[in-house]
Amino acid sequence: MHDTTGALSSYRYLVLAEERFGPQTSKTANSAIRYLPDRVVAVVDSAQAGKTVGEVLGFGGGAPVLGTVREGLGLGADALLIGIAPQGGQLPESWRPMLHAAIDAGLHLVSGLHFHLADDAELRARAAARGVRIHDLRRPPAELPVSTGKARLVDALVVHTVGTDCNIGKMTAALQLRDSLAARGARVGFAATGQTGILIEGWGIAVDAVVADFIGGAAERLVLQAAEGNDVVLVEGQGSLVHPGYSGVTLGLLHGSMPDAMILCHQPSRACPWSYGRHYDWMRLPSVPEMIRICEGVIAPLRESKVIGIALNTWDLSDDEARAAGRRLEEETGLPAVDPVRFDPAPLADAILEAAGRKQAVTA
Amino acid sequence: MHDTTGALSSYRYLVLAEERFGPQTSKTANSAIRYLPDRVVAVVDSAQAGKTVGEVLGFGGGAPVLGTVREGLGLGADALLIGIAPQGGQLPESWRPMLHAAIDAGLHLVSGLHFHLADDAELRARAAARGVRIHDLRRPPAELPVSTGKARLVDALVVHTVGTDCNIGKMTAALQLRDSLAARGARVGFAATGQTGILIEGWGIAVDAVVADFIGGAAERLVLQAAEGNDVVLVEGQGSLVHPGYSGVTLGLLHGSMPDAMILCHQPSRACPWSYGRHYDWMRLPSVPEMIRICEGVIAPLRESKVIGIALNTWDLSDDEARAAGRRLEEETGLPAVDPVRFDPAPLADAILEAAGRKQAVTA
Repeated sequence: MHDTTGALSSYRYLVLAEERFGPQTSKTANSAIRYLPDRVVAVVDSAQAGKTVGEVLGFGGGAPVLGTVREGLGLGADALLIGIAPQGGQLPESWRPMLHAAIDAGLHLVSGLHFHLADDAELRARAAARGVRIHDLRRPPAELPVSTGKARLVDALVVHTVGTDCNIGKMTAALQLRDSLAARGARVGFAATGQTGILIEGWGIAVDAVVADFIGGAAERLVLQAAEGNDVVLVEGQGSLVHPGYSGVTLGLLHGSMPDAMILCHQPSRACPWSYGRHYDWMRLPSVPEMIRICEGVIAPLRESKVIGIALNTWDLSDDEARAAGRRLEEETGLPAVDPVRFDPAPLADAILEAAGRKQAVTA
Repeated sequence: MHDTTGALSSYRYLVLAEERFGPQTSKTANSAIRYLPDRVVAVVDSAQAGKTVGEVLGFGGGAPVLGTVREGLGLGADALLIGIAPQGGQLPESWRPMLHAAIDAGLHLVSGLHFHLADDAELRARAAARGVRIHDLRRPPAELPVSTGKARLVDALVVHTVGTDCNIGKMTAALQLRDSLAARGARVGFAATGQTGILIEGWGIAVDAVVADFIGGAAERLVLQAAEGNDVVLVEGQGSLVHPGYSGVTLGLLHGSMPDAMILCHQPSRACPWSYGRHYDWMRLPSVPEMIRICEGVIAPLRESKVIGIALNTWDLSDDEARAAGRRLEEETGLPAVDPVRFDPAPLADAILEAAGRKQAVTA
């Protein structure tokens, strides 16, 4: 857990994405740029030096892409953010000199890698000598419970973003919905379950980094905390129930968080499960209606929970194609289906508020 | 991983189960007694001192239950085995003096707790000073992959024991089937996925102790290794797909091991999920036919895999009741259903050999 009042909520970042900066290869960097735009001063990627962030990503504005960490000093950053989340979560060895340069310049380090920077003797010693902090966002709390199902008992409506695949927009959908719900006056808690969500929200647990027996317990703890004083809790999803690599995390998170309702995230153009640049083309993703049945089916023995909306990821479609994809899925499922980044997420926010109203009516 | 040629395969154990020795409260002790009977010299539990193991468990013969570790010295043990696997996996603080006594007497320590004895500075220093080894069975390998589904490609028939609940007999069923299949001349590999299976087999990975992202990767690695030179691989199951605490481990293990077929383990008398002495009585376990649908359904998007038999746990039923429960489930499902401990597991072994024959015919 990381406190919202802590340093993570105020750092201004130089973001390291050396040779990886791009729409699909620098997930942590891209989310920081989207959700903390005022706190990203520059990105380091020598392969794209001279461009702006907006030119590389298609969003994010005029912050510069630099060739070296050194060029970024003096731009007002007080921390270096590791901008990637590669499969396996290791630190590229070639990045080490850049981390040294950052430490020596007095920048704190923030990382969401599985590999904990603070466990590296060299980095730890160098950081200590220079008096800078290392924040390993994925380091789990020391003591976690086995989940017991008690997250089902909170008063707030718990909504979980599930998906047909990993890296498809589950965190993004939850954050867009949080803003939309807050604009309607709802008190919304966000339960961050991955390193990027923690970076943005300032607290959370990376459930894919906990010891496997405690996936559900981590989710349960997050929901109980995020529910305090709130009407709605949005639980950031991870992976997919049909992903050959990550499905265990997904199911543990689902059963630990015990959502009242789910939002299914889907990319119409994606046919096979994906993992860090590689498609598992020996299998096909289920259709959206089939995925709805799978999600509702695996939680049915524990509680009734329905998919109440579909959040689309249409970044690779035209506006017309994106709207048509939404209409097609709405007809097929009877649920609102919209890209909450590209278009107004109101139809999904409305579905959530209606569900919250129904829950209040039942428990009142 | 622990090598079959290593010390674990030869130790003779004094088993510590202080105040916990019983049919339902000392899982690791009980499995050692059942599967390594010649290597258990005595059990320590002051609350039951003076009885025999058989008097406490209903099986296990005449090995004595002792009041102290000291009384066990001189009986030929060369290692102390921690005989419990409590929820959360912590070492009871009151056991510490007994561990010290064991170390001081020159006994090696073998533990399947989540809490790693070798990470405890006091125990580590004391063990090092006395020259005894500490084996933490649940310590995962340093580097594990994210699973990719490639376990589906091995030539051996991969059979996974799944269950309606945790602690219901998935390891026991697999071990009984291994013996039955071996007696028929099949070459059988056993993929141990929990501390007790590792203790018995001498190698394996405790999949509930790995970092959550790598549950499937651990399973995949185990299957690839266990398949070498074998006709059948039996993958020990963990938890249950509907268990509020452990389902994530269960699904990761299922998708990582990519079984050709499943054996469903079930206790007819159990109505609610169980976890270390506590029933989750706010939910009901699915029926066996429903559980078969759930198991086959969650793997269907990755591959077709069917439940081909039901292994019953009937320890709390009479012989007549146990036979009747099997007959009832056979009628209901059309599958062989038998308690493989109480009765001959031949119907289940036959089903596995038939499936192996079908797989060979397809791939030949």
